[in-house]
Amino acid sequence: MAEPSRTSEARRDAVFGRWVVFSPARSRRPTDLKSHSPTTNPSPSPGSAVADDALAPPKPACPFCAGRESECAPQIFRVPPDATAPWRIRVIQNLYPALRRDVEPPPSVLPEGEEAAPDGDEPGERAVRGFGFHDVVIETPRHDVRLWDLDAEGVRDVLLAYAERVRQLGEHPAVKYVQVFKNHGASAGASMAHSHSQMLGTPFVPPSVTTRLNCMKEIFDRSGNCSLCETRSKDILISETPNFSAIVPFAASYPFEIWIIPRQHISYFHEIDQDKAQDLGSLLKTMLQKLSKQLNDPPFNFMIHSAPFRLSSSCLPYTHWFLQIVPQLSTIGGFELGSGCYINPVFPEDAAKILRELDCSV
Amino acid sequence: MAEPSRTSEARRDAVFGRWVVFSPARSRRPTDLKSHSPTTNPSPSPGSAVADDALAPPKPACPFCAGRESECAPQIFRVPPDATAPWRIRVIQNLYPALRRDVEPPPSVLPEGEEAAPDGDEPGERAVRGFGFHDVVIETPRHDVRLWDLDAEGVRDVLLAYAERVRQLGEHPAVKYVQVFKNHGASAGASMAHSHSQMLGTPFVPPSVTTRLNCMKEIFDRSGNCSLCETRSKDILISETPNFSAIVPFAASYPFEIWIIPRQHISYFHEIDQDKAQDLGSLLKTMLQKLSKQLNDPPFNFMIHSAPFRLSSSCLPYTHWFLQIVPQLSTIGGFELGSGCYINPVFPEDAAKILRELDCSV
Repeated sequence: MAEPSRTSEARRDAVFGRWVVFSPARSRRPTDLKSHSPTTNPSPSPGSAVADDALAPPKPACPFCAGRESECAPQIFRVPPDATAPWRIRVIQNLYPALRRDVEPPPSVLPEGEEAAPDGDEPGERAVRGFGFHDVVIETPRHDVRLWDLDAEGVRDVLLAYAERVRQLGEHPAVKYVQVFKNHGASAGASMAHSHSQMLGTPFVPPSVTTRLNCMKEIFDRSGNCSLCETRSKDILISETPNFSAIVPFAASYPFEIWIIPRQHISYFHEIDQDKAQDLGSLLKTMLQKLSKQLNDPPFNFMIHSAPFRLSSSCLPYTHWFLQIVPQLSTIGGFELGSGCYINPVFPEDAAKILRELDCSV
Repeated sequence: MAEPSRTSEARRDAVFGRWVVFSPARSRRPTDLKSHSPTTNPSPSPGSAVADDALAPPKPACPFCAGRESECAPQIFRVPPDATAPWRIRVIQNLYPALRRDVEPPPSVLPEGEEAAPDGDEPGERAVRGFGFHDVVIETPRHDVRLWDLDAEGVRDVLLAYAERVRQLGEHPAVKYVQVFKNHGASAGASMAHSHSQMLGTPFVPPSVTTRLNCMKEIFDRSGNCSLCETRSKDILISETPNFSAIVPFAASYPFEIWIIPRQHISYFHEIDQDKAQDLGSLLKTMLQKLSKQLNDPPFNFMIHSAPFRLSSSCLPYTHWFLQIVPQLSTIGGFELGSGCYINPVFPEDAAKILRELDCSV
């Protein structure tokens, strides 16, 4: 049970430097918080194992289903690579890309071998051509399977597909960052119900990445510590594996927000190996199951926060990648839009306790 | 008509330093963009003048309607102040405040007379008691009247009520910033349909304010110019009055976003006088009418971006207040949440042209 007697508190985190207002009086009890718009992707029917080769019939008009590959934009790679076996994961181009790989990249590419600061640009108004990459990872050939319905090996392979594609994009000299993300549910921005993730390779370092690096640098300069290595409070821990911790962050912007953090200091997500990906896959699966069970299958987003490519080696001691999961339970209003400060009705310690004690094994 | 042949572009603004991706291919024509969830507050019936003393009957159970004042949290002031005349505007406490005026303010209050940097705090995790102020401005006694249904004098008086309450809050030594905002429509965060605005007085400088000041300082240090004084492009201008310009910003994060900027360099919104408030009231009314007509009465937010209180005088040359209006037409997904970078399907020049040419006089 969550503690009933907390009073409002404002907290600032040590990663983005964001202030969050915790205001439990504005909500019901944390355990009563549920999604009012559960996502509609059905669970697989009992007995229909995900690894089953006898696929359910594809959903009419879903181009992400097995058998409809020709309706998609070009494929980049597939898992397994052997085209004689059925695919389990496909990485394809986005049919409606926000950034386009077919336009000339902006000219401000650094000479080879030169290292960039987090954002080496001059400040002020600037416009560049909409060059970039916008790719889709189809996580399963089956329309009725959600990411957390896959077994841990299946989730591992999705994570390894992300890492492989991020590595490829990082080889392009004009790509400065890759944002990997997943939208689940229409109100979390998903336009397709079939389980998939996306990534955008951008010709600039995005604003939140600059903010994060600046904040973590400032703390490192004063303390000599990486903010994310310092996260060790038992109160906010949900679960730990040999390589990862899942926590509700100290200053979570959203109720039941979860961060999965490598326990070892590593700057780049895409350097993940097979073993760590399996460990992460298992933990991610459990966390998504817990959120689905506790919050009534809410729409959610997850995002991988990594480091910009070709970062100066002096920046590596304070960059530490992590995965952020945000269930969409509340509406953002003018206060949040204007101030960048969020109001969260659920204290992280309460959310962590609820998620920690929730049993998803049955 | 909007130009049909634009190609994707990424732009960074000179106020928040945010990158925005303009991707017209992902949308229909700008003129076809409409809200799918128009707000439900009805327009006044024809012939029912807003200033009419014969009020429509209050909506059952709406505590913001005339005659139900006793159901609200305590009143702070009203317009007119004379309690024998009916009120036109009430400024009251929020019944469910996110921050509480009745807890002890955090101890880090600066000694009297000392000037603060934008955010003088040490970086890193921090928690303070949830002290602050959360007030509501009821803009009209009538349930069926929207802010832009008031005449220009009525909107002026709402703006002057904001300014008066901001001034009062600024006198509290522990209040560092006041975020004034309006949520219109449930999906923009409004929990009450009756036309109202809110403000939160915070014991910290909110993150977006710090980001904005840092960005504008960096530009000022290099160029000697205030970013907002430099906004003079005809392409993005919607309308001008003697004291204000209404534009679609060069790197608008949202389709049909509008900024209303004082033409004179002024740091603090709350220093507005009667004449300028009338001028702003008239322009704000017109802009809200245009958005409502063009976009099918969309949910929207507006926010006043001012300067933190007791800012060092050396910061004043690069702080310039403005009002931002954001219609809610699209869903925010993992890319935006993760990167802080927005994807906007409508080029500012196209949105400005459409809004400039739209006639709301009939």
